[in-house]
Amino acid sequence: MSKELNTVYIGRKPTMNYVLAVITNFNSSNTKEVTLKARGRAITTAVDVAEIVNHRFMKELNVSEITIGTEEIQQEEGGTRNVSTIEIKLTHD
Amino acid sequence: MSKELNTVYIGRKPTMNYVLAVITNFNSSNTKEVTLKARGRAITTAVDVAEIVNHRFMKELNVSEITIGTEEIQQEEGGTRNVSTIEIKLTHD
Repeated sequence: MSKELNTVYIGRKPTMNYVLAVITNFNSSNTKEVTLKARGRAITTAVDVAEIVNHRFMKELNVSEITIGTEEIQQEEGGTRNVSTIEIKLTHD
Repeated sequence: MSKELNTVYIGRKPTMNYVLAVITNFNSSNTKEVTLKARGRAITTAVDVAEIVNHRFMKELNVSEITIGTEEIQQEEGGTRNVSTIEIKLTHD
């Protein structure tokens, strides 16, 4: 896996956990790009993380790309349901 | 206000209400562009609305631009808190 491309998966932990993960990613591995990925309710958290990192900790960052999508989730009781996804790409020069 | 630029504000109503609002906007006013705006928890709903309109009802649409931001909200007990925002622009030719 390329060190240039790092991904932080956003889930149900406190927002600041993911903020720290993003900052650590940028600082520890010479990465110029970190992608946040989230689905369902965590989409809001992903946007919060991007905004907090960007405005409070690493003002030199840019949101270079945001994409949304849909994933099919297998349900325990059978069948599938759709869930929305988001990817937010943060870059610095 | 230009008829070319329509906005649907996403809040706490059921997702399909907003899906219908977007479709009505496109169909009733010759609009080529509708922007979804949401903040806080409603961000997830905004992404759901964009995906449902796009995949189920109006497959010719494109998500032409997504921007995220932060707004300061005045709190009743005084002071402010920050809330994340999203804007999703849907266009068709």
